[in-house]
Amino acid sequence: MIIDIHGHYTTAPRALETWRNRQIASITNPAEMPKASELRISDDELRESIERNQLRLMRERGLDLTIFSPRASFMAHHIGDFQVSSTWAAICNELCYRVSRLFADHFIPAAMLPQSPGVDPATCISELVKCVEEYGNVAINLNPDPSGGRWSSPPLSDRHWYPIYEKMVEYDIPAMIHVSTSCNPCFHTTGAHYLNADTTAFMQCLTSDLFKDFPTLRFVIPHGGGAVPYHWGRFRGLAQEMKKPLLKDHLLNNVFFDTCVYHQPGIDLLTRVIPVDNILFASEMIGAVRGIDPETGHGFDDTKRYIEAAHIDPQQRHKIYEANARRVYPRLDAALKAKGH
Amino acid sequence: MIIDIHGHYTTAPRALETWRNRQIASITNPAEMPKASELRISDDELRESIERNQLRLMRERGLDLTIFSPRASFMAHHIGDFQVSSTWAAICNELCYRVSRLFADHFIPAAMLPQSPGVDPATCISELVKCVEEYGNVAINLNPDPSGGRWSSPPLSDRHWYPIYEKMVEYDIPAMIHVSTSCNPCFHTTGAHYLNADTTAFMQCLTSDLFKDFPTLRFVIPHGGGAVPYHWGRFRGLAQEMKKPLLKDHLLNNVFFDTCVYHQPGIDLLTRVIPVDNILFASEMIGAVRGIDPETGHGFDDTKRYIEAAHIDPQQRHKIYEANARRVYPRLDAALKAKGH
Repeated sequence: MIIDIHGHYTTAPRALETWRNRQIASITNPAEMPKASELRISDDELRESIERNQLRLMRERGLDLTIFSPRASFMAHHIGDFQVSSTWAAICNELCYRVSRLFADHFIPAAMLPQSPGVDPATCISELVKCVEEYGNVAINLNPDPSGGRWSSPPLSDRHWYPIYEKMVEYDIPAMIHVSTSCNPCFHTTGAHYLNADTTAFMQCLTSDLFKDFPTLRFVIPHGGGAVPYHWGRFRGLAQEMKKPLLKDHLLNNVFFDTCVYHQPGIDLLTRVIPVDNILFASEMIGAVRGIDPETGHGFDDTKRYIEAAHIDPQQRHKIYEANARRVYPRLDAALKAKGH
Repeated sequence: MIIDIHGHYTTAPRALETWRNRQIASITNPAEMPKASELRISDDELRESIERNQLRLMRERGLDLTIFSPRASFMAHHIGDFQVSSTWAAICNELCYRVSRLFADHFIPAAMLPQSPGVDPATCISELVKCVEEYGNVAINLNPDPSGGRWSSPPLSDRHWYPIYEKMVEYDIPAMIHVSTSCNPCFHTTGAHYLNADTTAFMQCLTSDLFKDFPTLRFVIPHGGGAVPYHWGRFRGLAQEMKKPLLKDHLLNNVFFDTCVYHQPGIDLLTRVIPVDNILFASEMIGAVRGIDPETGHGFDDTKRYIEAAHIDPQQRHKIYEANARRVYPRLDAALKAKGH
């Protein structure tokens, strides 16, 4: 079985964006605020949006199951207040849940949180509880910078975030550390802000003792870990200067990297440098890079081809494709076992 | 000849830091502001600080010449106003100039600029002119974020920066794009902010047509280009989505990467992915990562060992060690030729 742990609902019916635009426009004019119930998307519309896009590519590429969360760039936690984020997160999570019911063999949901800059993360707990207990979500996406490129929240090692971590530990679910749209003109969203956030989050873990407080907390760093594996020697050296334990002991029981690296040399470096137990298959399709690589004739984001060509043995490949995901996402494993997988 | 294009004066005599601390303390108490003339460092002190440190390691490792600039993390452009930065930059640049006179065969200077958040970069021109015309500087370090982690300046593609670029083109000198200390608690200076800035700067170039306005402008992206080479497929794909030319045509006449990547797999990826004409030898020693790698028994920052072991031929190695530096830094080439090299 091949599990893609990083998919977003980037192809939702247009009505979703229209509703969101009305919501944003009404922030300065509350009388115009649309109700959640005014968004109507039929099951047929959901089916079509998935069958023509993600599911088509999963079949073409031979992927079985995707952990599916709301579109990352549309989370836009910096827009409006907690109430705006709360209504928006509930709508987006419900859509991913519905997709997971319509295509129960191929999609299982992960939740976005109703984060809002300057607001206590504890306010996200009720949405998280609903998504896990009622919708069967197996993970959350946690935005380390709800300001959208101003980086005004404390580092992930700060007690600010502990209410989320306590609930994650209770439910035994991991968080993918994933920012949203940058509203800072210095940072291109998918070309700089995403990768910077990955590197930043890793370094926040490295400099702290977060995982002493939460030994079972698990973070997935997307986009191949940002700059981290390429600079693994730098990070090993910085940890050594700070008298931290070896990275494998300090972080690698808790931090995992996905394979959203869109060329063969990058995947070759990732699999050479990072222990195979810490690598999870992912493609983040249909996402930031949708085109065909003229150097290969295949989609940039067809990451399975790179894993197939990497110098690893079948057992290692199995870990990357399936076994690690079952270990890092126990609720995914339980859901699969309940179906006899 | 082996030229290290990325060295900072990280080992300056303690009196420099003491003076700076007095300067910083006096920002809120201007009557206490120290004069530049109150800083006294003898030639012998300079000699000792270099001979015991950078020059010792250059000899041990077989490096001939270092392009030497003030300590990056101490630039701290976010501290004080333009006048504070101006005095500080003049002091630091003079020290690097003096080192270059004391060790003329081994050090050639590059200038820091007296940048200050919110201040027109044109105010940096007079220091730049002095450093090139009087001190023989062959390059500048340009900080894309003088706020120190708030990223409040416009992107490098903005006309805001054009006065600097016009002078760079006139003098035919490159800029290393190098941030300084982060005062944002989210960003560890050398583990996150530096690498993020590298990625950010590259993406600012990619999304813009800056090099159409300045066809001969040259940027050196340090620290191996941040996350860029590891994600080269992502950047090729993003450029394609934006209908930009191929990266080799769009950027690689103007953008270069150094080899400050502190392990073999990183250098192997860099030399596999980036055309050899765009790679410049550097180690940034004595810098962020000073220890011995227990996996190799050698310094993490002994990057010559990685270049020696990389799968490249002698001609390619010569380009990385010397020929590319002479091409990208024409004033370095001229200075060497004037000495018969």
